[in-house]
Amino acid sequence: MIIIGEKINTSVKAVNTAVEIYDEVFIKDIALKQVENGADYLDINCGTFTEDEPERMRWLVDTVQEVVNIPLCLDSPNAKALETGLRINKNGTPIINSITAQKERWNSIFPLVIDYNTKVIVLCMDDDGIPEGSEGRVRIALKVVNEMVKNGVELERVYFDPMVQPISVDSQNGLVVLEAIRRIKKEIPEAYVICGISNISFGLPARKLINQAFLVSAICSGLDAGIIDPLDRRLMGLVYAAEALAGKDEYCMEYINKYRSGFLE
Amino acid sequence: MIIIGEKINTSVKAVNTAVEIYDEVFIKDIALKQVENGADYLDINCGTFTEDEPERMRWLVDTVQEVVNIPLCLDSPNAKALETGLRINKNGTPIINSITAQKERWNSIFPLVIDYNTKVIVLCMDDDGIPEGSEGRVRIALKVVNEMVKNGVELERVYFDPMVQPISVDSQNGLVVLEAIRRIKKEIPEAYVICGISNISFGLPARKLINQAFLVSAICSGLDAGIIDPLDRRLMGLVYAAEALAGKDEYCMEYINKYRSGFLE
Repeated sequence: MIIIGEKINTSVKAVNTAVEIYDEVFIKDIALKQVENGADYLDINCGTFTEDEPERMRWLVDTVQEVVNIPLCLDSPNAKALETGLRINKNGTPIINSITAQKERWNSIFPLVIDYNTKVIVLCMDDDGIPEGSEGRVRIALKVVNEMVKNGVELERVYFDPMVQPISVDSQNGLVVLEAIRRIKKEIPEAYVICGISNISFGLPARKLINQAFLVSAICSGLDAGIIDPLDRRLMGLVYAAEALAGKDEYCMEYINKYRSGFLE
Repeated sequence: MIIIGEKINTSVKAVNTAVEIYDEVFIKDIALKQVENGADYLDINCGTFTEDEPERMRWLVDTVQEVVNIPLCLDSPNAKALETGLRINKNGTPIINSITAQKERWNSIFPLVIDYNTKVIVLCMDDDGIPEGSEGRVRIALKVVNEMVKNGVELERVYFDPMVQPISVDSQNGLVVLEAIRRIKKEIPEAYVICGISNISFGLPARKLINQAFLVSAICSGLDAGIIDPLDRRLMGLVYAAEALAGKDEYCMEYINKYRSGFLE
């Protein structure tokens, strides 16, 4: 699975403080640790800085790029913040996180995908909100595919997020996304499917268990990428196990190697 | 999920010894502990006693029934051993574990299903062995359904086991079973689907992680029952999480209750 390290996110208090006081050491440390533990991308989110998000994004991208050379996943609905990051990006092709099929958001962010030749996460929602079942999500994905192709964006650059909603609100919310993952993979095999996992357990106790179980099932349903904490050893162990179960780890060699390196617990 | 406690199985050394020396205290203890931790049935397997399996089965059923009143899952390919257990059964409707579509096995065991009005686990294999893909497994299940209906066996008494094979042998072996579970549930919604889980990780290190991940995915694919260790708290926590994800736990009330009782870790 493509692992996008989630830890550089100012919605976490300690990270917010570090960005507030420009604490390079703190940020570089969590950047490095995520890479050491298997991150393929680092998510960068400073959305709590509503006033000067672009400036904080610039500082974060700069700081992170001083110590790691994996690509970044710039996480904001704010086109200015995204562009500030894109302009100074030097670690390969970044991911824009995220666009939707909502007109306004599409119009403000899609030009960046074109201009900076980025990858992009597409949330399966439009101006009518998040569709109820899996079918509506697939319909939005197919509509977006059309736009992408028309504008010369290769589908290998597109990551669909079927939009996870809490099972505490509707007990079908997990199954709907698993079904959506399978259907998007079948209908648009060239594109990727990604999920923000943790929303599934919103409002419940012992959220980690629900998140672990959901990520595993999502991988077995075809999930390609996840924004997760690579430092969570138990979660990562289950990820490697699920990858093997999903038929993506021939002869289970990666699983066996992770075991030998002491990564499984 | 219907939890069939797996621990009374003489393939485990300590259990074998206990049965060998008729150690009632040991057997009663693991029987009780499994019930306390959520088992709905107790599997009884003394297959290592090839010579006097019926006599050991009789003793085990007797001994277990002295302390628990949940039904048993009599686990043997030996019709005589099964019948010995069935004759003295007094804890509700037992499950016969198992029959196959192999002629000889069918002919020796199916009469017991009729005569003792039992539930039965049907392994999806016939005289040609285990089919390669999910389709062949579904085909066998449908053939068996025909026989069951013809003989007046309600499908609510039938538990199909799609036959798990190791992913170390073929990386598609996990996906094939997940697909088979979904298809059997769709084609034969009145019947149940059950799995022996642990074969999936045969030949691999850190087997527990693979087993956990597979059980979770199987539940999210529609698995109704599993022969597992209810004393494994981590596994059971993931089971409750997966049940909630599978839409089988309205308002997540069971999950929340398990959390409050300190069962989740």
